[in-house]
Order: sequence, then structure tokens, then C-alpha cells
Amino acid sequence: MVKIQEPSPPTLHWEGDESGVLRLLDQTLLPETVRVLEIQDSKSLIGAIQRLSIRGAPALGVAAAYGAVLLARESRDTQSFLQGLEALRSSRPTAVNLFLALDRAEALARKSLAEGINISQLPTLLLTQAKETHRHDQQTCLAMGIHGAELIQDGMRILTHCNTGRFATAGIGTAFGVLVTAQAQGKDFFVFADETRPLLQGARLTAFEIKERNMKGSLLCDGAGPGLILSGEIDAILVGADRIAANGDTANKVGTLPLAMAAQRAGIPFYVVAPSTTLDISTPSGNQIPIEERDPKEVTLGLGDGKCPKEFSARNPAFDVTPADLISGLVTEKGLALPPVQTWIQDWAANCR
Amino acid sequence: MVKIQEPSPPTLHWEGDESGVLRLLDQTLLPETVRVLEIQDSKSLIGAIQRLSIRGAPALGVAAAYGAVLLARESRDTQSFLQGLEALRSSRPTAVNLFLALDRAEALARKSLAEGINISQLPTLLLTQAKETHRHDQQTCLAMGIHGAELIQDGMRILTHCNTGRFATAGIGTAFGVLVTAQAQGKDFFVFADETRPLLQGARLTAFEIKERNMKGSLLCDGAGPGLILSGEIDAILVGADRIAANGDTANKVGTLPLAMAAQRAGIPFYVVAPSTTLDISTPSGNQIPIEERDPKEVTLGLGDGKCPKEFSARNPAFDVTPADLISGLVTEKGLALPPVQTWIQDWAANCR
Repeated sequence: MVKIQEPSPPTLHWEGDESGVLRLLDQTLLPETVRVLEIQDSKSLIGAIQRLSIRGAPALGVAAAYGAVLLARESRDTQSFLQGLEALRSSRPTAVNLFLALDRAEALARKSLAEGINISQLPTLLLTQAKETHRHDQQTCLAMGIHGAELIQDGMRILTHCNTGRFATAGIGTAFGVLVTAQAQGKDFFVFADETRPLLQGARLTAFEIKERNMKGSLLCDGAGPGLILSGEIDAILVGADRIAANGDTANKVGTLPLAMAAQRAGIPFYVVAPSTTLDISTPSGNQIPIEERDPKEVTLGLGDGKCPKEFSARNPAFDVTPADLISGLVTEKGLALPPVQTWIQDWAANCR
Repeated sequence: MVKIQEPSPPTLHWEGDESGVLRLLDQTLLPETVRVLEIQDSKSLIGAIQRLSIRGAPALGVAAAYGAVLLARESRDTQSFLQGLEALRSSRPTAVNLFLALDRAEALARKSLAEGINISQLPTLLLTQAKETHRHDQQTCLAMGIHGAELIQDGMRILTHCNTGRFATAGIGTAFGVLVTAQAQGKDFFVFADETRPLLQGARLTAFEIKERNMKGSLLCDGAGPGLILSGEIDAILVGADRIAANGDTANKVGTLPLAMAAQRAGIPFYVVAPSTTLDISTPSGNQIPIEERDPKEVTLGLGDGKCPKEFSARNPAFDVTPADLISGLVTEKGLALPPVQTWIQDWAANCR
């Protein structure tokens, strides 16, 4: 086992017992300002989620689990607790992990109610459950890190996209967590981080993580990666995933696909690192993955004033789909799946049933 | 022949006789403010070129030709004129068209001197030459436009990168000039413009041209094009070129290559539109094209304050190379060359000798 440093302050952290406080690192102010929000009630948490002070599917799941504790201690009875859950659910309409965490909180509350447990005891039970969710996310990240780090060799120049580190999860991350693990193993490598327009998670968050971990790294405009890949300046690509279809087609942050095409042409590996919860066997292929289209203003106004004609239209797909044939390997907490990834996903699904 | 509207004010325009003035549309203020600079002397022109008030290889060539007129009328004798040319030459160290225009001005001055023509007559001769350079650039653009417009059909959704329109040339442009021509022919199409980080020529200039010509169009982040191409939302790609090697490999603004790879995978055409002066038969392949690496601050500071950790490093290649096998056709002022483009380039070179 290798020792991995946890940077301070952590992305999210519950302090004290069930009467304690949820501390969130405010991601909206990064990388300029490191400020910790002290969240004492569920309304404040909803505000923080909506302002994107915390984001990233796994991190949102853990935050919601702690949010249930805050809500329970504000609630006069189990009925008002269950009503309050709806407000938490609607804070980010597409965050699956957030729903799953609140479903677990709801199930626990209903079971407790049926067993005659008083609302005053619910916060303690929910805090135990939230800490379990938190620990599980951390362990999943560590397992992906260990499996993925086998792919990293000394001297490698690795390109990554968007933010997949500690700000996206409650642990060390997915693709970036692999790099954190490889660093802890003493491996020496160089990280290229795509800036990741329009919301710049690469420039704002991944660059911050590279710096705080004293890794060697450089920022790239999103258009620059493929040229560097074809000119032999990159040895491997590591990205996360938002959703993986049954055939292995992978939806991830827009701008992932061009890296995969260039990697194939250059003959370098393109790895996807994601927890098995990302696998969606009910979706046969990438063609059926709906691509969220976000506000065009993120594109047109995100550049700063006067960088594009006023009220000019824009398309803003949040994701693209990388076809399975471009993927050299899939790293989950279970291990490394090699192509055809589809076969591995089918076996995994069969074992889960 | 179709009638093509010239938007006002033009990118550059000489007003009056040899005692007149060079008017430049200040591109640094676009798209917010349309301001015309009145350039009365060569020093002011050097400043405008260095500030990037005018940019784009063909446009710089024409501006330099007019600059020679300004310089000649400031010069006491031919010797001081020739010395002054050096300052103009050093205004943009890599602008080939600028050098070519000044070489022509120098040759004319030396010839005139040898023929006993007085320095006071030189401005008139140089103005005639500059207007010829200007007209030639316009005609080259029109010819590319007509050849290229044959590729555009009603209803097409066309993706372009960087700025290749009137702000990059003294005419209607290269790739964008094709769209201008197709529009004048009454064709109905939709233009997607990549924003083109780091300097945002797509968002700032191409979007401005789309708007001023009342075309239908939308802006895209540079990472979004490949996903839209693979999901069937784009019918053709049209880009310019900075340098084309003897085998057809094409250097163009960074971010071009991923569009070409996606186009091949999706089975849609990827066309390069460039004047034959862009063909460099002394360079065997793209591997020998040097890629200009620009100031990393264009990447890290160009995002606005606080969007990336302070003093974070960046790579900033200005171009990438699209291999010839990804190019569906090359449009020059001579016509459309189909693959293998290499064969066409060899024939063209043989005929030029």
C-alpha cells in the first residue's frame, strides 16, 4: 500500500457528531481563493449545490447524504423530513448520485419510522449512513487508482480532460486519481490538462490539483491536444466518464472524442477511468445516450466581455460520445477491462444480477 | 457572375492619390467597436501591425505594399527609403506575404533608381504597384470563392475554424470567401464557427462576419465540433491553410486536425481553401513544417482573471498539421484539386517552373 496525501482543506468534510457542520470547499472561487463554506442547514446546502460550490456526480452524492442529516435535525417529524427531501432532490435535476443518496436516506427514514424510531434519533442513523457513502466513494477511488496506476510508467506524458480529481469526487478522483496514485508510488510523469471550455474545469480545477500535488504539468487549449498527440508528444490519454453504454461507447465531457481519435491514429492508448456505477447496461450504445445541451451563454459570455458579437447564438453540448473501438481499456474499481470492453461489461452485468 | 456585397468599412482601403491615407479597420476592437484607423505615415502602420490591428497573411501583404508608399513619401532619397523598409520588414517576423510585398517594393525602387527616376516620383509608382497587389488578392479570393462554392449545396451545415474571411485577406477571404460566394449565388446553408482558442478569431471575427452578412450561424467551443460531426449534425468542413507541404499535408490554425479526423470517420468532406502561394513544395511533408509555439500567456491569461492558477505553465502551438489522407479536396484560385492532392501539387509545381 502507498500513502496518499489528502490535500487540505478537503472537498467536503463533516465535522463533529450529528449536531455538527458540513464543510465544503467553495469551488466557484478556485483557483484564486480557497474558502471553506460552513453548511449548518439544508437550505444553505441547496444554495451551495445550485451555485456549483460543489459539483461532480460522486461528490454531489456524498454532499446529499450529509444534507439528509441536516434536514433530519430540522424536521419536526418524519413526514416533514420526507417533504424536505424533495427540495434537496430538485437542487440539481440530472445528478444521479444525488438521487441515489437521497433514496437511501428516504429508505432509512421509512424503515426507522416503521420500527417506531423517533425523528430525534434519525440524524444519528443518517450520519452513519452518510459516512458510509463517503468512505465507499473514497475506497472506490483508491481501487481505481491502484488498478489504473499499473498503466503509468516513468517518463510518460499523459493528457487528461476536464476535472476528474478530488473536486469531482469525495476521494482522490477517477482519471486524475490514477495519477495521484502513480505519484504516490514514486512514478515520474508529466500531465497535460485540457482547459475544457466552456466552463474551464481543466484550467480552474485540474491545474489547481496539479499544482497542489506538485506534479509536473501544463495547460493546453482544447484544440491543441490532437496535434501534440500526432507529433509524438503524448504517451497516453486518461479521461473519466459520465455514462458508459452496454457496448462500451462512452459519454464524457465535450472534447474527449477528438483525443480518442488522435490516440488511435498515433497508436497511443486511450483509457477511461470510471466507477462501475457509470456503466448503464440499459443503454445499448452511444447513439441512445442523450447529450445535455446547456445554456449557449456559457459559450458566448464565458469568454469575457466583447469577445463575441452581442446575442450571437451558440451550441453548447456538454458531452460527446467516444465509440468503444477507440477505447484501449476501461479502469473501474474492479480492475482493468481490455477490449472488447463490451464483453467485460456483459460479464460484469451478469455477475451483478 | 454573382454580385458580392463589400461590407463597410473595408478591412483596408487606400484613399486618394499618392498623398492620400491608408484606412484600416482596427481588428483589436472587434466585435464590440468598429473603428477605422487613418494611417498617414509608416511608423503608425508598423504600430498598427504590431498591435494586430491588422492581421492575416494576405491582408498584411497588401498593408505592407501601401506602407511602402507611406515610407517613400517620407524619404529624402532612395537610400533612406531602402533603410526604412527594414523597419517595416521587422514589424511581424514570420509574415511571408509582408516580406514578399516589401521585396517587390524594394525591387521597384532599385529599378527606378537605376533608371534615374527621382524619389519624388516613387510614391506614385509604388501606389500603382500596391493597388495591383490589392486587386490581385481580391481576384484570388473571388476565384477561390467560385471554385469552392460548387461544393456548397442548399441546406448544408458547414463547420469552419479560425477566421478566413475579409479580416484575413484584402478580399472576401479563403474558406469563408467560399461561403460568401455561395450566399451570393442564393444558396441557403448554416455555418458553425469554432471559437478558436486561444485568440478567439472565430468568436471575435468569423462570428462578426456571419452577422454582418446575415448568414445563419452558431458559435461552438473548439472541443464540440467532433461530437457534432459524429452525431450527423455537420455536412462539410471548410478551413484555410497556413502552409501546404509537397505531399498535401496542411498546417492550419491549431484545432483543425480534430475536425479532419472526425470528418473522415463520419464520411463527410473536409476541404482546404487556400491560394496557391500557400503551397510549399520545398517542404516534403507535414513532419518538416515547423510549428510556431506562441506565448503561454495567451492561454493562461487569455481566459480572464482567476481562471487558472497563477504562473501555471502552458503549451501554445499556433498550428497543427492535417495529414493529406484526411483532406477531401484542395480549393485554390486555379480550381478544385481532388485526392491524391500530392499529384495535383506536383503538376502545379511543374507548370510553375
